Amino acid sequence: MNLIDWPVEKANRILAPRPTVIITTVNKQDEINAAPFSFVMPVSIDPPIIALASAPTHHTTKNIEETKEFVINLTPAKIMDEMWITSKKLPYGENELEKAGLTSLSSVKVSAPRIKESMAHLECDLLRMQEVGDHSLILGEVVHSTIEENIMKDELLDVSQVKPLMHLGGKSFVVGDHLRKVE
Amino acid sequence: MNLIDWPVEKANRILAPRPTVIITTVNKQDEINAAPFSFVMPVSIDPPIIALASAPTHHTTKNIEETKEFVINLTPAKIMDEMWITSKKLPYGENELEKAGLTSLSSVKVSAPRIKESMAHLECDLLRMQEVGDHSLILGEVVHSTIEENIMKDELLDVSQVKPLMHLGGKSFVVGDHLRKVE
Repeated sequence: MNLIDWPVEKANRILAPRPTVIITTVNKQDEINAAPFSFVMPVSIDPPIIALASAPTHHTTKNIEETKEFVINLTPAKIMDEMWITSKKLPYGENELEKAGLTSLSSVKVSAPRIKESMAHLECDLLRMQEVGDHSLILGEVVHSTIEENIMKDELLDVSQVKPLMHLGGKSFVVGDHLRKVE
Repeated sequence: MNLIDWPVEKANRILAPRPTVIITTVNKQDEINAAPFSFVMPVSIDPPIIALASAPTHHTTKNIEETKEFVINLTPAKIMDEMWITSKKLPYGENELEKAGLTSLSSVKVSAPRIKESMAHLECDLLRMQEVGDHSLILGEVVHSTIEENIMKDELLDVSQVKPLMHLGGKSFVVGDHLRKVE
């Protein structure tokens, strides 16, 4: 074993791979935005609270500030290419879901839509947003959750069904034992 | 496709699997504590800041409050059983690393030790701690990082080398395509 120093600004590459999600939001004009994230995790069980880190100028951040709501949609490997299309910066107000060919479903409790192909959705109300370093840390309470039946087994995510896309960094992902790269 | 409701208090089971880490801390008497977590993620690149959610009464939380420092150690699959031993609640001040047969290495910048078998370490200074629901949200700046050479490939974690243990929930984990359960 030989230990070497690793640049601290690349610490995010060590804490990997992380679940990839697509966050859907709307602005006050009810225009839909969608974008992928992997800086997202649960921070409280009851009440159920999720933390999400987003760039302060990102349309997602802007929309959450405006409407105080968002939806976390899982990214099964089968929608990897569509997820990547949602990462492209479109003019503000343009709908990345349509561009990507993903299907919007109305949510149960919030105005932002769910993504049908995602298999699992967490509808969230904004609790708090604060600057942390170069990101905005967004804390949201899960107010409703839906899943495709059969994706949970003994209350655990059935990874063989969902094949969750895990983010390594940049354009590189992992699905189970396999490396996947978007273009 | 048939969508069903999922209990919001089990939202953490949807946002999975997540990287498992062992957090090492010391108290004012320099007694070492170690415990596993999977509510941990990067939230800022530059400055490099990590968020960790821990139960308020947990020895890890108590030690970070006391000494304002902690180390995030990766959990390669090869130390799954040792990781699980560190999850057992020992009397305050007793060293879970010794109990688990893991090797302490002095850190470069903080007083908490690194775990030799972990292959990668993020030494952190506490920035802020706040109550969020039933957990304490701990924000720490990465002040030094070390890795075993060869575990990064093109600046991405080489999962075929590390085989990171990913947490599904409870005693269930995933390594690549394989389910693993601790006892």
